[in-house]
Amino acid sequence: MQVQYILEILGTGFFAASGALVANNRSTPDWFGATFISFITATGGGSLRDMLLGSYPLAWVKDVNFIYAVLMGLILTGLFYNRIKHWRKIFFVLDSLGIAMFTIIGTQKAMSMHVSLPVAAILGMFTAVMGGILRDVLSNEEPVIFKKEIYATACLLGALLYQGLDYLNCQRNYSYLIAFAFIFIVRWIAEKYHLSLPRFAKDHNKNQEL
Amino acid sequence: MQVQYILEILGTGFFAASGALVANNRSTPDWFGATFISFITATGGGSLRDMLLGSYPLAWVKDVNFIYAVLMGLILTGLFYNRIKHWRKIFFVLDSLGIAMFTIIGTQKAMSMHVSLPVAAILGMFTAVMGGILRDVLSNEEPVIFKKEIYATACLLGALLYQGLDYLNCQRNYSYLIAFAFIFIVRWIAEKYHLSLPRFAKDHNKNQEL
Amino acid sequence: MQVQYILEILGTGFFAASGALVANNRSTPDWFGATFISFITATGGGSLRDMLLGSYPLAWVKDVNFIYAVLMGLILTGLFYNRIKHWRKIFFVLDSLGIAMFTIIGTQKAMSMHVSLPVAAILGMFTAVMGGILRDVLSNEEPVIFKKEIYATACLLGALLYQGLDYLNCQRNYSYLIAFAFIFIVRWIAEKYHLSLPRFAKDHNKNQEL
Repeated sequence: MQVQYILEILGTGFFAASGALVANNRSTPDWFGATFISFITATGGGSLRDMLLGSYPLAWVKDVNFIYAVLMGLILTGLFYNRIKHWRKIFFVLDSLGIAMFTIIGTQKAMSMHVSLPVAAILGMFTAVMGGILRDVLSNEEPVIFKKEIYATACLLGALLYQGLDYLNCQRNYSYLIAFAFIFIVRWIAEKYHLSLPRFAKDHNKNQEL
Repeated sequence: MQVQYILEILGTGFFAASGALVANNRSTPDWFGATFISFITATGGGSLRDMLLGSYPLAWVKDVNFIYAVLMGLILTGLFYNRIKHWRKIFFVLDSLGIAMFTIIGTQKAMSMHVSLPVAAILGMFTAVMGGILRDVLSNEEPVIFKKEIYATACLLGALLYQGLDYLNCQRNYSYLIAFAFIFIVRWIAEKYHLSLPRFAKDHNKNQEL
Repeated sequence: MQVQYILEILGTGFFAASGALVANNRSTPDWFGATFISFITATGGGSLRDMLLGSYPLAWVKDVNFIYAVLMGLILTGLFYNRIKHWRKIFFVLDSLGIAMFTIIGTQKAMSMHVSLPVAAILGMFTAVMGGILRDVLSNEEPVIFKKEIYATACLLGALLYQGLDYLNCQRNYSYLIAFAFIFIVRWIAEKYHLSLPRFAKDHNKNQEL
């Protein structure tokens, strides 16, 4: 419980920082715009999961610490922006930490509400990726998820691994750690070796008018 | 009840197939991206309706058969893509079957929760069109609904027809069938004869800066 | 209570009119498309607030007067479009009246559900700006909020002012009026003198690949 809470607060801060980095990289937001995008990136996935589950109150509505976590991630990013922007790896690491934490927390939360395992894995993946999708949709950009899809697939596989460990009665904190490391490493390997999934269906005669 | 459930599962599969067709026609998604778009297209409208009504649990969260219906529509589309893509009519038929089924199911669901009739008709129409709108918004395309609007108008008229038949104590399965056929036929006629609604307001001096 | 209801109905009509003006200015919607955009603009912010709070039933789902307010705003806009479109100030005034009313109503609604004050202020601001954001996202435009951000900042400051007056036991109708006037005037001054907030972080070496 305690570990889950700490992970969720940390993940929120990491996502807020990654949201602010992306927003500032794409355009030149003022402090309000950056805060807004940060907030949506950090809280969007978890809020959507809880709204789909009907699990109220939402974490950030009930507990103002989530707001502080967003502000912390945002302010640190703003202060150190011109140091960290050269290090694209920082973004990759922050974002990967965020998605790994949120996938596992989201899967566990859905399982605790007694939904079926496939649905819990989908909701875990949604927790991790929907914040970024909302960020992209609000910025009128094509969501990143449709360009580097291995990213969300790593979340889905990590959710299934967590469920497998849970089924084997693995102690919960170990399951967290193993699934977390798995998602992080799969994403890192996929990025490094440019791994991708097979195409859905090849199409030589594109019909543009559908 | 039984008929309603079968229609909802079938409509989900039809929408999943139409979502995969559109996604693959617009870009070149991998299997994950196509699955994601398919899933949102098929479950988005019903999920939004239930979230607006506060009717929990959502159908696909409670009942894993909806997930299987999406996968079935998706896999069949993937396997037969290079046969069916030449037949634009297949898309039109799948999508029309989906919207006709979802309009009626959505209207009936909202009426069973005792909302007013205009609100139930709006929620029925939302059930049918919001999945496609979410699909378009996530793909960063202008929603189809704003180009061929007779499509959603047919849903709204079908919802009102269903309510009229219900008011006249028509047996429910007949009401389903009549309103279903009505929506399908209105859309087909509108497409064939390029029918459209009158413009909202003509404007000869466009002011681009609003 | 009575005043709150009247403000909410009026704000809904103002937002519906501003939504129809924006939609018609950007493209050439038919009556259905304009109605759809109007409806989303007018009800989107309040619906999102209530869905985030888990406060059911939603206002427009429960009370058909909200639907009539949308139709009224829409029809008046349609009839007088070619008179009012030359007056960009009309749009500005309608939209400003809408956001000022919705901010205060949203903040009060969230406070009445016993969330923390920062969360109530955020939800008040969301009530005012999310309808317009949904309108822009559905039209595949970059949300206005990221271009003239002082707009949402005025809402946030107005929400905090309302909370301060409430804390000082100011009579509620006076608090409404003062916070309402404050938001309207701040936005008007910001527009007139082109006030803006400081940038989030300057960046001389844009890295386009994030």
